[in-house]
Amino acid sequence: MSETSTASNGVNVEALLGARGAITENPDLAQFTWRATNTWKNGTHSVAEVENFYGLGAEQSHTRKFTFEGDHPLQFAAEDNGATPVETVLVALGGCLTAGVASIAQQRGIQLRSVKATIEGDHDIRGILGADPEVRNGFNEVRVNYEIDADASPEDLQALVAQSQKRSAVFDILTNPTAVTVNVS
Amino acid sequence: MSETSTASNGVNVEALLGARGAITENPDLAQFTWRATNTWKNGTHSVAEVENFYGLGAEQSHTRKFTFEGDHPLQFAAEDNGATPVETVLVALGGCLTAGVASIAQQRGIQLRSVKATIEGDHDIRGILGADPEVRNGFNEVRVNYEIDADASPEDLQALVAQSQKRSAVFDILTNPTAVTVNVS
Repeated sequence: MSETSTASNGVNVEALLGARGAITENPDLAQFTWRATNTWKNGTHSVAEVENFYGLGAEQSHTRKFTFEGDHPLQFAAEDNGATPVETVLVALGGCLTAGVASIAQQRGIQLRSVKATIEGDHDIRGILGADPEVRNGFNEVRVNYEIDADASPEDLQALVAQSQKRSAVFDILTNPTAVTVNVS
Repeated sequence: MSETSTASNGVNVEALLGARGAITENPDLAQFTWRATNTWKNGTHSVAEVENFYGLGAEQSHTRKFTFEGDHPLQFAAEDNGATPVETVLVALGGCLTAGVASIAQQRGIQLRSVKATIEGDHDIRGILGADPEVRNGFNEVRVNYEIDADASPEDLQALVAQSQKRSAVFDILTNPTAVTVNVS
């Protein structure tokens, strides 16, 4: 669409559409394995690193290693050396949806000026503390609220965010079950 | 249990058991709301901040603000300014399970020397690219592998990791569905 040239949100939509074409012809290229490593420090404090992944039929690297500190807060009798893992899930959700908002805005010719989201997760910690077996360990509910300043109508912004949600990996990961196996070697 | 005094993993189990008692008597204290904010920078690059949360019946703060860069990699025609959000989900899972391993080891009197985990998520990106409507957007499967050096038998380490999995908030978030609402204000 010629519309794509009218907005400048920093997303290379042509490259993404090209990738979609290549991957449709060769689905093996679409098989990715993302990785993180986690190393325990002390107490509930651990450090994670993200550097390499598999995709496009080969081993791939980020341009640098990304490091994350994780811990529990003082309110859990811990040292608060990093965000709580459940907060890190909310970070991932916001980052995924916002990347989608920018990409779809670019494709639709919507110029963004600012995009901000607040992400909240309600959590009854009786589950993780083993205080009530009827209470689940994870979030009861998650809410995301966007404030977007852009050259678009409120209806177009609603549709933009709805489409990002529809294509979001992390939204899917939260709202649908995934098989997770945990082993000790 | 007197066992708890024999290991020194940096987890205050007595405080956690006390919290469990207080919360069992007053479930309102167990209602937490965790938060993150996300601000778009350019392209698929955004920055998240984690600083405040609600819990124990009042607004709470971390000792400092935690900041996360999120982006897509060069292989997605993006600038790789931070980890990909799906990788951040793996970081959260590892951090949650490792905090559980340390806490439960402390409670069981198991002295940990080192704990390392690799976390991998298989992802068919035809979903997020809209190349095949039959392919889900999220992970097909996630695998976590622990290497633990501790004063414990292989069977005790298996049981330790299994109990961490059973009490993990992020494990539950990945393996079970959560309601997520996304709005534009």
